[in-house]
Amino acid sequence: MVRADKGLPFLLRYENIAHYDDGIVWILDRRIYPAREDFVRCADYRQVANAIAEMVTQSGGPLFAASLGMVSAARQAKGLSLLEARKLLQRSADELSQARPTTSANMKSHIQKVLKIALDAVEQGEDAEAKAHTYVIENIEKRYQLSRIMADYAVDLLPDKAAILTQCYAETLIGFILLACRERGKDISLICPETRPYLQGARLTASVACDMGIPVTVITDNMPAYVLSQKMAQVFISAADVATLDGHIVNKVGTFQIALAAHYFGIPFYAIASPSRKHPDISTVVIEERSPEETVQVMGIRTAKEGVKGYYPAFDITPPHLVSAVVTHKGVFSPWDLKSYFED
Amino acid sequence: MVRADKGLPFLLRYENIAHYDDGIVWILDRRIYPAREDFVRCADYRQVANAIAEMVTQSGGPLFAASLGMVSAARQAKGLSLLEARKLLQRSADELSQARPTTSANMKSHIQKVLKIALDAVEQGEDAEAKAHTYVIENIEKRYQLSRIMADYAVDLLPDKAAILTQCYAETLIGFILLACRERGKDISLICPETRPYLQGARLTASVACDMGIPVTVITDNMPAYVLSQKMAQVFISAADVATLDGHIVNKVGTFQIALAAHYFGIPFYAIASPSRKHPDISTVVIEERSPEETVQVMGIRTAKEGVKGYYPAFDITPPHLVSAVVTHKGVFSPWDLKSYFED
Repeated sequence: MVRADKGLPFLLRYENIAHYDDGIVWILDRRIYPAREDFVRCADYRQVANAIAEMVTQSGGPLFAASLGMVSAARQAKGLSLLEARKLLQRSADELSQARPTTSANMKSHIQKVLKIALDAVEQGEDAEAKAHTYVIENIEKRYQLSRIMADYAVDLLPDKAAILTQCYAETLIGFILLACRERGKDISLICPETRPYLQGARLTASVACDMGIPVTVITDNMPAYVLSQKMAQVFISAADVATLDGHIVNKVGTFQIALAAHYFGIPFYAIASPSRKHPDISTVVIEERSPEETVQVMGIRTAKEGVKGYYPAFDITPPHLVSAVVTHKGVFSPWDLKSYFED
Repeated sequence: MVRADKGLPFLLRYENIAHYDDGIVWILDRRIYPAREDFVRCADYRQVANAIAEMVTQSGGPLFAASLGMVSAARQAKGLSLLEARKLLQRSADELSQARPTTSANMKSHIQKVLKIALDAVEQGEDAEAKAHTYVIENIEKRYQLSRIMADYAVDLLPDKAAILTQCYAETLIGFILLACRERGKDISLICPETRPYLQGARLTASVACDMGIPVTVITDNMPAYVLSQKMAQVFISAADVATLDGHIVNKVGTFQIALAAHYFGIPFYAIASPSRKHPDISTVVIEERSPEETVQVMGIRTAKEGVKGYYPAFDITPPHLVSAVVTHKGVFSPWDLKSYFED
């Protein structure tokens, strides 16, 4: 059981993404970690949706936090009429699914499953809160096992000694890759672009490596191409918020320009992601634009003059010819062959 | 005279780079502008060299500040024996020239000229301080005129309406380009990557445009390729700290990866720079590495955990095949033909 694995670094324990306790969802505030290990208190599903929209958590965090938001809604539904309970749960599922636009495809199908379990329990007079919570925990544990399998396939692709260039925070994946490298005797280090505006590379990815005693260097987001030109990294690895069936990788903004530089220098780019049936091609993907204020300030300090505008596209799109492989829990696929992921 | 042109935005007036007053060199602290308009007080040439090393000023700022440092040294030499005065001036020139490694080629030849004027004055019993100061002011005014000419050639290359993607702070060049566009009726806006770690794009370039009422948008350094993919900019323009005779552009780190993305999308990259005879090819250029602490903090706030390392190459190298043109005060050159710049 992953749960019992207390040797995991802080960010690789799922109770440190978020946890549910007596009606309250506690979400790690990734906007301030590692300076502080604060959890944001969400007393109902709406506060969970707000926390997700406000970037308290990101990457894989929203999916887990939102599913705990459904548990909270199931508790709130207790004592309501069947009709009112159904309405509440349906509304919770809708709002939690839509907390952020680009990630909503995967989020939505997962939330729908939690909704179904809660609704079934309500219909049958069972404890919907407990049923939903059990499912959510079993599901995150299953996801962790899948992450470990994906990480293992990624490690198959790595040389015995390499520096990995990362981007943003690939949730559990980079941590499990580092664990697998250690188990398999591969000598790995990380170079993490800081990933503005929220600095997930500096604050999250680098922390996981640091907690494990893996050498890690943080650079600013204008340095990846120079680092690759100096042969300081041998592989570029990122997760993906969406991998379309036609091989486009939608991930944190910056991924595309690193992939361009990696391609220029003949360095492989491995995207670790499950292809999404909801996105047969890139045309269905909406790139979320977040508050422009984020790019004219850093950590709450205004950088540019008043009157200067910001612009914040949260994601970008890397086309398949810049993607060396898509690593899934079913193995390694060419970005041109992702449809075969669904053939069994 | 540029000096009398009080209509210039704050950063385009050279007294706001640095100025000399009664033995003291005052240098605008670009690390905190525009939050505050503070000038760092340098009581002698050593304090000027330190201020340059500590990034109080950058881009074209060090050359002017260092030459004022020589004026300060000439004052200090008063009353010394001829031998002692010579020693002091020579030492000042050496230390000021070497305050930063990558920019030292241009700096060195300029400082040598100021040194010669000061030494000649000392030998002939003239006022070396006044002579040197007069030369330095005449020189900056000449440089400003050359910048205006370079900017004018750059504007020849621009369409009637365009958004310019910039990088870092091209000293006077971007400001003079904006002035020339206004005079010539071209409808121009800027998109400025913030340029970590010191944020010169957000703090300096964007301020010049903002002061002139030119629309300007700041993005983070991971966004240029996405911005270009969305056809939001039609041209990429930067200055260069060094343009080698074989067409390599050495400029603030990040320039290379933007040039790569611009090339990918068929968007021209114009580097505005005087080719350097001191650098027949790229092999003679030293890329300055600054304190690694800068990439694990932002504006004095630590971002990554203790134990995480930083790495800060201050410049990168864009090869000639990614450079569309080099714009000089003698006109527009192919990066493959920079030797003809020296043919008259």
